[in-house]
Amino acid sequence: MHTEKIQTNLGSYRVHVASGLRFNINQLIEKEYKRILLITDSTVDKLYADDISKGFDEAVDILKYVVPSGEASKNIEEYYRLLTYSIENNMDRHSLIIALGGGMIGDLSGFVASTFMRGIDFIQVPTTILAHDSSVGGKVAINHPEGKNLIGSFYPPVAVVYDVDTLHSLPSHEIRSGYAEVIKHGFIANGDLLKDVLHLDIKNEIENTQLIRHLCDGIKVKANIVEKDEKESSIRKFLNFGHTLGHAIESEMGYGNLTHGEAVAIGMLFALEISEEKFNVDLFSSDYQAWMDFNHYPIKIGKLNLSHLIKRMKKDKKAKHAIVQMVLLENIGKPILVDFTDEELSAYLDKFLRKLGSN
Amino acid sequence: MHTEKIQTNLGSYRVHVASGLRFNINQLIEKEYKRILLITDSTVDKLYADDISKGFDEAVDILKYVVPSGEASKNIEEYYRLLTYSIENNMDRHSLIIALGGGMIGDLSGFVASTFMRGIDFIQVPTTILAHDSSVGGKVAINHPEGKNLIGSFYPPVAVVYDVDTLHSLPSHEIRSGYAEVIKHGFIANGDLLKDVLHLDIKNEIENTQLIRHLCDGIKVKANIVEKDEKESSIRKFLNFGHTLGHAIESEMGYGNLTHGEAVAIGMLFALEISEEKFNVDLFSSDYQAWMDFNHYPIKIGKLNLSHLIKRMKKDKKAKHAIVQMVLLENIGKPILVDFTDEELSAYLDKFLRKLGSN
Repeated sequence: MHTEKIQTNLGSYRVHVASGLRFNINQLIEKEYKRILLITDSTVDKLYADDISKGFDEAVDILKYVVPSGEASKNIEEYYRLLTYSIENNMDRHSLIIALGGGMIGDLSGFVASTFMRGIDFIQVPTTILAHDSSVGGKVAINHPEGKNLIGSFYPPVAVVYDVDTLHSLPSHEIRSGYAEVIKHGFIANGDLLKDVLHLDIKNEIENTQLIRHLCDGIKVKANIVEKDEKESSIRKFLNFGHTLGHAIESEMGYGNLTHGEAVAIGMLFALEISEEKFNVDLFSSDYQAWMDFNHYPIKIGKLNLSHLIKRMKKDKKAKHAIVQMVLLENIGKPILVDFTDEELSAYLDKFLRKLGSN
Repeated sequence: MHTEKIQTNLGSYRVHVASGLRFNINQLIEKEYKRILLITDSTVDKLYADDISKGFDEAVDILKYVVPSGEASKNIEEYYRLLTYSIENNMDRHSLIIALGGGMIGDLSGFVASTFMRGIDFIQVPTTILAHDSSVGGKVAINHPEGKNLIGSFYPPVAVVYDVDTLHSLPSHEIRSGYAEVIKHGFIANGDLLKDVLHLDIKNEIENTQLIRHLCDGIKVKANIVEKDEKESSIRKFLNFGHTLGHAIESEMGYGNLTHGEAVAIGMLFALEISEEKFNVDLFSSDYQAWMDFNHYPIKIGKLNLSHLIKRMKKDKKAKHAIVQMVLLENIGKPILVDFTDEELSAYLDKFLRKLGSN
């Protein structure tokens, strides 16, 4: 078992990565809980919910709440239903929430945990590759119709339990989505990881040792950054590489039509091309685009309205006084924050969309 | 100006107490904000909202959102409307929320501030005596139909600005409500404050110097406790003196029919009488009841159902595994947590309600 320790303002927690961990969560947690609420989605429920419950003693009351699969469930109504369910089923401050599923489940359940009776313990049991990113760093949230993750908290889990066996059942768009964040961690902080992933065929089953190495490398990059800047006042913003345009594309196309990582993958290509032009450096943008092509990342994404995208980029949580800020790379492993005027951004984006055939 | 510094896990903030401060908030804050959302209620709006705005430079955009007065506004719908308003009016992570009003406004606005884009700065400008208690300690929340403050966070303000001029316009039930928490701080930690308040006629206007002294003494007691136990894992529970039954009475009678402090005042009498019996000590419970009577605290509160009250006491956030825990006093300034069996609690409560004429 690989274990990474993450330090936060509110104490530390551990991320455990190995095969078969879902049967033994009880042995990985430090406190005893009399009542546990397992939150999962309708897809994951059928696959792994029973495996989780089996690992606990019969004396523990395990409640289960199944949310409809899909990003659309990360809304205020589902959040409130979960709180009501928790209250009606006598969850208290000493109870535990286990979030079993992808990023949507982790974000939604974490936000419930952070605000139920002003905060109770929760454990992330991610079942997607993408969640190697979202389960580390303590960000929890729900969406608002006006934008992703606009309502949320910083609230670390008490542990993250990552059973890699659950990753082989993922559909291909989910593998693409997850590997976009893995390669992002390569671009911003780990050239070896980047090179390794650029040679990877993710259309076919990825070997467990390689998958574990990539997840652990990605988690280390993320942990190293969030430990220094939990509240995203400085360097944590680097993790936003590819996300400014990515989020805008994702919400412009409607959540669910493109996965988060697929949208970010396009956003990274945009940021790489601007970086290469601005800093006169080779960041392997053509190798990266070839890798995207080879692994069936969507690149031609249909007609997108330039001014709508810019309006959305300005609504991004990271925007300051409505000025768009993007993460660029001065080199591999050298991210930098750059402010853009509307004109400059329009010009770059227009060129990029034309090249992709989206404008 | 009296200033108390409060230390929290997430840094420190100051509580300023003086006459006329509402005109000069700009001078008491350390950062510059380009956009400020002033949240207030329909009663306080007419009295003081303009005074607050006047103190800021014209370059600052000041938005105003007025919530209907009364505890009923502390609900999920109003919370979500405030978030939507903030998003639609381009509030961002660098904006400020000012909560101008009583505890309801502080709790609701603070919860919005704690979860809007994962948390933005907020300042409390309390306009009730009760808020000397709720504005210190970083607890923010909304109510659920099943119980008070069941949804919330620990989220300290960046400052508390207490203009005592705003307290003279309070209706008498609000003064009673606030002084219940003042006398609570006396009971659990400051015998001199207790004696001083037990001699006070709060039916007539309280002199400013005396009022400021009582507020500052109360804030010191509260600050001293929350600094040692922000997350309420141990001694912070002592602040719950009188609240276990108080909250149950409040929700059983329907929020708004009795003020928070008036309900807690009855809860304290209950806790005092049990304490005197259990620990064979004189805690001035009869002086206290006489003071309540003299100052027109409601004591005969109509028929209350014993088993309903106990059910509600078990739903209290502080309850652990459905066992009711109450704060008692071994002596003045010596609080202690005591677990009660259902039988014991029923017997005490039945006797108490009969004595009050509520059963």
